[in-house]
Amino acid sequence: MKIYLFEISKTDLAGRIGTIDTNHGKIETPAYVPVIHPVKQTIPSKKIKEIGFDLVITNAYITRNNYGDKAVKKGIHKIIDYDRGIMTDSGGYQVLEYGDVPVAPTEMAEFEQGIMTDFAIPLDKPTGFGLPIKKAEAYVKHTLKVCKQTIEDSKDNGQIWIGPIQGGEHFDLVAKSTKGLIKMGYKMLALGSPVEFMESYEYRLLAQMIIAAKKQIPHNIPLHLFGAGHPLTIPFAVALGCDTFDSASYMLYAKQNRYITEDGTRDLSDIVVFPCNCEICTKYTPDELRQLESIEKINQIAIHNLHAIKLEVDKVKQAIHEGRLWEYVIKKARAHPKLFEMVEVMTENSEFLKIGTPKFKERAIFLFDKEDQFRPEVQVFHEIVRGFKSKKEKILITNESSTKPGYLSHQFVNLSKKLKDFEEVQICQYNPQLGLIPIEISDIFPAAHHETSRMNFDPKEFTEFEKTWKIFFENNKFSEIRYNKDDEFLKYFVKTLPKNIKKKSFL
Amino acid sequence: MKIYLFEISKTDLAGRIGTIDTNHGKIETPAYVPVIHPVKQTIPSKKIKEIGFDLVITNAYITRNNYGDKAVKKGIHKIIDYDRGIMTDSGGYQVLEYGDVPVAPTEMAEFEQGIMTDFAIPLDKPTGFGLPIKKAEAYVKHTLKVCKQTIEDSKDNGQIWIGPIQGGEHFDLVAKSTKGLIKMGYKMLALGSPVEFMESYEYRLLAQMIIAAKKQIPHNIPLHLFGAGHPLTIPFAVALGCDTFDSASYMLYAKQNRYITEDGTRDLSDIVVFPCNCEICTKYTPDELRQLESIEKINQIAIHNLHAIKLEVDKVKQAIHEGRLWEYVIKKARAHPKLFEMVEVMTENSEFLKIGTPKFKERAIFLFDKEDQFRPEVQVFHEIVRGFKSKKEKILITNESSTKPGYLSHQFVNLSKKLKDFEEVQICQYNPQLGLIPIEISDIFPAAHHETSRMNFDPKEFTEFEKTWKIFFENNKFSEIRYNKDDEFLKYFVKTLPKNIKKKSFL
Repeated sequence: MKIYLFEISKTDLAGRIGTIDTNHGKIETPAYVPVIHPVKQTIPSKKIKEIGFDLVITNAYITRNNYGDKAVKKGIHKIIDYDRGIMTDSGGYQVLEYGDVPVAPTEMAEFEQGIMTDFAIPLDKPTGFGLPIKKAEAYVKHTLKVCKQTIEDSKDNGQIWIGPIQGGEHFDLVAKSTKGLIKMGYKMLALGSPVEFMESYEYRLLAQMIIAAKKQIPHNIPLHLFGAGHPLTIPFAVALGCDTFDSASYMLYAKQNRYITEDGTRDLSDIVVFPCNCEICTKYTPDELRQLESIEKINQIAIHNLHAIKLEVDKVKQAIHEGRLWEYVIKKARAHPKLFEMVEVMTENSEFLKIGTPKFKERAIFLFDKEDQFRPEVQVFHEIVRGFKSKKEKILITNESSTKPGYLSHQFVNLSKKLKDFEEVQICQYNPQLGLIPIEISDIFPAAHHETSRMNFDPKEFTEFEKTWKIFFENNKFSEIRYNKDDEFLKYFVKTLPKNIKKKSFL
Repeated sequence: MKIYLFEISKTDLAGRIGTIDTNHGKIETPAYVPVIHPVKQTIPSKKIKEIGFDLVITNAYITRNNYGDKAVKKGIHKIIDYDRGIMTDSGGYQVLEYGDVPVAPTEMAEFEQGIMTDFAIPLDKPTGFGLPIKKAEAYVKHTLKVCKQTIEDSKDNGQIWIGPIQGGEHFDLVAKSTKGLIKMGYKMLALGSPVEFMESYEYRLLAQMIIAAKKQIPHNIPLHLFGAGHPLTIPFAVALGCDTFDSASYMLYAKQNRYITEDGTRDLSDIVVFPCNCEICTKYTPDELRQLESIEKINQIAIHNLHAIKLEVDKVKQAIHEGRLWEYVIKKARAHPKLFEMVEVMTENSEFLKIGTPKFKERAIFLFDKEDQFRPEVQVFHEIVRGFKSKKEKILITNESSTKPGYLSHQFVNLSKKLKDFEEVQICQYNPQLGLIPIEISDIFPAAHHETSRMNFDPKEFTEFEKTWKIFFENNKFSEIRYNKDDEFLKYFVKTLPKNIKKKSFL
């Protein structure tokens, strides 16, 4: 009996590198799960495996309609000719598109067990987007009922049943739906249906939906995100805690001559130079690709699209390994103005993102602009400083030294020699994002492990600096502060100090 | 006789797509120019051509030392086995490294003519970085003297002589040096020596040096940038008007097991998942590459590095074709905190960047944050509005409609029906970056062609909005303004209006 279904080896923000153990080998996450059509697939599954995908998703409902009972004899792995992990959707997508399907959930579940899919999904009733709350509530209730029946009927045969979370933009329902599935014993969950959020560029809603679900999910349960496999959304989906995500876009786009790039989708006719290194883009010039005959052209664009998505996942994985997922997603947000709104979601959910962010990192973190004050690592440092108590009555604040930690800097050593009352003075350095850095703890991560832009920052934008400043001066009893009066950034905060603190110039 | 040496087909910011006509075919710019060692090269020049480079640079001084007069008989194309464009450095790099070389500039020039290089560089005396102004001045003077002699002695044989600009961080000298070379008749220039700027992450100084030179250079003269061929610097170099740039980093880094990525250089030992699609990264896993024997490993990393640099150039080219170079470089700035300081260089040089930015673009531009108010296209629109005169005495300001141009929106059509005094009211929409948009000109680019983030912007950061607002109300004689009093952004500016303008609420 497998004890650990999902093993996590590395985390950053709410993202993680993990492995899911299946009847067909271990699947490394985060993973993009390409959609394979059980009948009309034109890119061979062998090619898909070769590009580097170890898990695909296909449709059990269509399989059942086309192969009937023969499918159970053959098994889904032979039908789609793929020997690694297979996930099957049960017809929920068809329900969302056409309203209903003429098959009972129990029959569907029995069929999915029969074809020995690795990841099976009960026949749910997706809420989609834009449903009134009453109707959405009824759909969630129906789905939960089906899920309960399905998991009770399921055999312990190494298959993983995935509980489908519904609720759409009704986040209370999303939370309720999630809790219900966990209680039933689902070891993996899937969140529907973000496609409509994405089509209307409502990335913020999508993020809020993911967070509403994730807040209810224990760490050892992987989360799948339905239909969200575009380079634009993958980094955020992973950063917010999604482990796998499927999409048919590589093929749907290819049929419309649409070429996936890291920053969005382009019409093939708009491409002058391929911004890509993949096998297709090095084999053809854009003109040559445009001139291929239709089916060949579609397949070649689809293969490029698969490479583009795979590359995005690999970049995100490498960013997790490097502890740079925050930097990566904040940069990625500049792919589209509506995606940029995700920066606000990230800064507003610092507490949530803190859980998976390591307390210490090997590498220096990069601090660019105001949003980085909300980086989990930076927030943790603010908390430490907010609890710092000094025994001194005087404080001297300088800007950061380039040598870190600050107590090893020339700047500090010179102070210790020059200041006659050095022993009586609390020395602090400061950084706009990190706030006050008491010299005694200037070696704590990330005080000694960061790079910051030398920009003209507006102190009013640095609300975390202001909070820490306030608490720090309340916690301590300074009667004198020394600082450089030409420092416009610091001046703004010094002004807020009570009058009984003597302000002295120091250069 | 060739009349046009340099043909420009597309521009954006100060960047351009062009072709330089040489004795060995047309070279498309912007182009990265890989350094080929005339003796010790381990990546065959054939492979370099196959990766997609049509122009390489090699060292005439080393060639002369190793081949002597035989080099003239064979010609440089046979020596390095490359049949496309070849540029030769003349030993200036050695002068910078070792102080001097034992060869006279006239001999060097004669040699470069003899080996029939396509782009020849006179034997200059590079200033580098950190020279006192007197010394830098002497170097510039010496270089100008050599350049004058060289071009006077040169034959009209289809070779292109490149004038080396010196001056380093002394921008007046850079400008003087540039003017001198242009006066002598140089048809192509090269700017040295940014390597030291880059080693100390002084990207801002590098940018200022480029701008100091570019401001003196007519458009039809291409500019080469010495030693700056890293994905971090390429987008900015191109955006500021550099057309070609060489570097040996692909090989120098490879020798230290350093792997080039779009966001910087990584030690191969730190790579878990290759964030790249190139032939090397799809052939090996990181572990397999690490285990290759030394020379093979160096060559494979070098080939990856060449692909990574080539990809960056292709992405920049495609961004120029799409009119998205501004978006591309502002995003790229987030690769490193010191590179992020380039955002300030971009916003401070709006006038300079305006020259090459098309007045109209086919695609919508993306507006993300405060820096986009300084985008050339946005600046041009502000200028138009600053000259706008209304005959009306009342003004009504609403936020932007999602339908564009504004006069086609429901919002506007409803206003025209509802407002009893519609004919007497100047209708404006607004956008934080674009400022006021009088409805009559809401179809002008980019008023009708942009996407903006829906963020909580701080009005104080929008100084261009403030300027336009001030001028607009000075130019016109409004006695009444109607606006939504819940609109915090607009409220900030309404407060600045004189008391004799009646403020009325409008929803």
